[in-house]
Amino acid sequence: MAKELTQRSENYSQWYQDLVIKADLAENSAVRGCMVIKPYGYAIWEKMQAELDRMFKETGHQNAYFPLFIPKSFFSREADHVEGFAKECAVVTHYRLKNDEQNGGIVVDPDAKLEEELIIRPTSETIIWNTYRNWIHSHRDLPLLINQWANVVRWEMRTRLFLRTAEFLWQEGHTAHATREEAIEETIKMLGVYSDFAENFMAIPVIKGVKTENERFAGAVDTYSIEALMQDGKALQSGTSHFLGQNFAKAFDVKFTGKEGREEYVWSTSWGVSTRLMGALVMAHSDDNGLVLPPKLAPIQVVIVPIYKKTEQLEKISERVSSLVSDLKAKGISVKFDDNDNKKPGWKFAEYELKGVPVRLAIGPRDIENGTVEISRRDTLQKEIIPIDGCVEYIENLLTEIQKGIYRKALDFRTENTRSADSWDEFKDLIQNKGGFVLAHWDGTSETENKIKEETKATIRCIPLVNIQEQGKCIYTGKPSKQRVLFAVAY
Amino acid sequence: MAKELTQRSENYSQWYQDLVIKADLAENSAVRGCMVIKPYGYAIWEKMQAELDRMFKETGHQNAYFPLFIPKSFFSREADHVEGFAKECAVVTHYRLKNDEQNGGIVVDPDAKLEEELIIRPTSETIIWNTYRNWIHSHRDLPLLINQWANVVRWEMRTRLFLRTAEFLWQEGHTAHATREEAIEETIKMLGVYSDFAENFMAIPVIKGVKTENERFAGAVDTYSIEALMQDGKALQSGTSHFLGQNFAKAFDVKFTGKEGREEYVWSTSWGVSTRLMGALVMAHSDDNGLVLPPKLAPIQVVIVPIYKKTEQLEKISERVSSLVSDLKAKGISVKFDDNDNKKPGWKFAEYELKGVPVRLAIGPRDIENGTVEISRRDTLQKEIIPIDGCVEYIENLLTEIQKGIYRKALDFRTENTRSADSWDEFKDLIQNKGGFVLAHWDGTSETENKIKEETKATIRCIPLVNIQEQGKCIYTGKPSKQRVLFAVAY
Repeated sequence: MAKELTQRSENYSQWYQDLVIKADLAENSAVRGCMVIKPYGYAIWEKMQAELDRMFKETGHQNAYFPLFIPKSFFSREADHVEGFAKECAVVTHYRLKNDEQNGGIVVDPDAKLEEELIIRPTSETIIWNTYRNWIHSHRDLPLLINQWANVVRWEMRTRLFLRTAEFLWQEGHTAHATREEAIEETIKMLGVYSDFAENFMAIPVIKGVKTENERFAGAVDTYSIEALMQDGKALQSGTSHFLGQNFAKAFDVKFTGKEGREEYVWSTSWGVSTRLMGALVMAHSDDNGLVLPPKLAPIQVVIVPIYKKTEQLEKISERVSSLVSDLKAKGISVKFDDNDNKKPGWKFAEYELKGVPVRLAIGPRDIENGTVEISRRDTLQKEIIPIDGCVEYIENLLTEIQKGIYRKALDFRTENTRSADSWDEFKDLIQNKGGFVLAHWDGTSETENKIKEETKATIRCIPLVNIQEQGKCIYTGKPSKQRVLFAVAY
Repeated sequence: MAKELTQRSENYSQWYQDLVIKADLAENSAVRGCMVIKPYGYAIWEKMQAELDRMFKETGHQNAYFPLFIPKSFFSREADHVEGFAKECAVVTHYRLKNDEQNGGIVVDPDAKLEEELIIRPTSETIIWNTYRNWIHSHRDLPLLINQWANVVRWEMRTRLFLRTAEFLWQEGHTAHATREEAIEETIKMLGVYSDFAENFMAIPVIKGVKTENERFAGAVDTYSIEALMQDGKALQSGTSHFLGQNFAKAFDVKFTGKEGREEYVWSTSWGVSTRLMGALVMAHSDDNGLVLPPKLAPIQVVIVPIYKKTEQLEKISERVSSLVSDLKAKGISVKFDDNDNKKPGWKFAEYELKGVPVRLAIGPRDIENGTVEISRRDTLQKEIIPIDGCVEYIENLLTEIQKGIYRKALDFRTENTRSADSWDEFKDLIQNKGGFVLAHWDGTSETENKIKEETKATIRCIPLVNIQEQGKCIYTGKPSKQRVLFAVAY
């Protein structure tokens, strides 16, 4: 099975597509641009959700649920927001179908036209701030720290599984605060939660930064993001956190009475990560044999494959393995004993490599005699024979080591592929021939940013939050600049 | 606050509406028929989800995610399904908006009309069975046991928070099997899961049964349901499990090759519960003071209210309480210490009664001196003074007792309100003057069922799975009947 996977060096994009499908993560559906997330892919997403949800709750947030539909007029309320969001979206115009008397089948009932069209939410700021108007009156109602897990729809013309789909799953946090400072603090705090999650669970190093005006969320005062580097040298924006100022409060007339009795508009933030993270996870670590999953997000952390010819051999192996399985489970390690008799060990080995199971154990009759087990790790493909006694602790440590190893490898890759450019020629050469992140001076204008994008396809991913301040000249215009910004060609 | 609640005896329906809103469970949104589920309501739903999800996984099911949109033509494939589902639904006809040059605002772009309209899923059998066609080829691919947590939309004309809303949240299981027997077994097994969940977590006794043809799911061979009785004597269908035969497999051409090499259509089931369960939970147990939540689903199981006048009194109480809080948390009990200085104890007492917190502790300076605490249980409103030492164990037992007590009370209510009718006059009298469940003989025809409904509003909720077989005469037509069926006026 794994053999059919396109090699990364051959066609990275095709490799990704092949891998997502062959590893049973997702597939395209009958509806243009919408994906089906298959059980194995969904199990990874559930693990991501569980960790993120825990982190949100630990930082004081509560979940709620707001409607899928947004009245069309809501989008017009915030001037920038409408420009950015109300265009490519799914519009509900009718609420009934009827039998087609002439041609059979069913047709839209023209009598069931909605007075005002409803938009399937592409993001929920408008409906949520329209609701917050009734929830917020006094400073005692603040802060309001709410998150929702939901599906959203953006009618993308060119879609790719997980990376860009018409419908996707995400979480969107929407918070309300009494002061500007508190809202900014929240924006940065949630960026920190995303960065912790990416680095400590997904094992993907990310750069935290602020977006330029061009790349800002429609309606935000400032957009912050975490940016990750994929193996093909392209950047992937992996999460955003927006400081919305008082924009939505003004658009939806949400005011509060402060401690001193003065009425003021509420300050707000919003922040989100989506099933796009699944794409990042696949592209950051996997290889030509298949997925490489960080143990903390792997639905199956350890697979045990029995090697046998005769039924009594399998019985002996099963007997020995059963206590190992319970010991691993007792440690909170998810384990699968694959004693399926229809598949050969070689097929299973390839299958679990494809699926990215971090640790594989193989046990044959000789191992039973010798009290040993063959253990192999997915990330490095290294194998060794270890005593079966005490192997639980060994596996536990190995899972920790793999988690760290995958992160270190991704970090090394990013370090090797982050370069500085001091001239326009050098910049073009790096972007076109090396890819990766390029740190370069920029004059701070959208005009220059647009021209650089036109000529090289590279965009400013962010202005890193931790950044050396130094005098320099814009690589494109030669105008003075005080810091380098992070360029890359992005997904 | 609690005072503003309409009393049940005055207007049950208004009491329900008041309670859902005042207890911060949900509210109506700006979009007709769609609700906002507020954080407190959502926290209860999350607890329900967590338990159900665990039960589904323990019975071998996996989660996945299928598209929100269903191509219109899919509905026409299964003849009964289209009759039942394709009518009152939200239809997406366009995928773009544009600026309205003349009047400002935005309008639907007429150039962005979809070739085929998309329906927002009212249920997902069609899109899922269209997908299963590519997943199922051999008997080795079966059984396929999949569930999804999702939002669905049915364009209801008269909506009520949780009980009937245009958009609602639910889970829908869709399974595929090699044999008719196995599919029926799955249908009954999942009905059992729902019944276990209702009785052991929601503390609501339910009757398991099979639906008559009139009440069957559109496209099912048989629909099974669990039926609960609310305090106003109306029945609430709380979960359904459908044996779909080969209907959807035939409609979407899903066949498998059996062990003997013969091709056959796949057998299937589907089953679901929704946020409607929130309505059942509220209506089954709550009283004129507010919610009564079973401890297993209460977001806050224990609230501690300090009674004090001076700051140093609060400090002493807080100090004593802090170890109690950690001890309770260590036992897995969720606890809130409400030391908010802006609200008086009386206000807090009423608030937590409204919110249905199962156990309330009140601690004042005299309690600190005496080593005591006042404990009161929400279900019976009984109070007592107990020693603070050892109160953790006391609370733990009390929570178990409350869980049982609530169930027992609901069961007693149902027993008292389940009656037999042996004549048409008796039946009408019971339905109109007593409500509740009425067991009566029926001749087995839809015609009779419809007439009984027209004259009394009562419907056959189900034919109980556990049912005495006895000779009798239909209360309406006098024709022979072999068993009584369960009638009630239903939500």
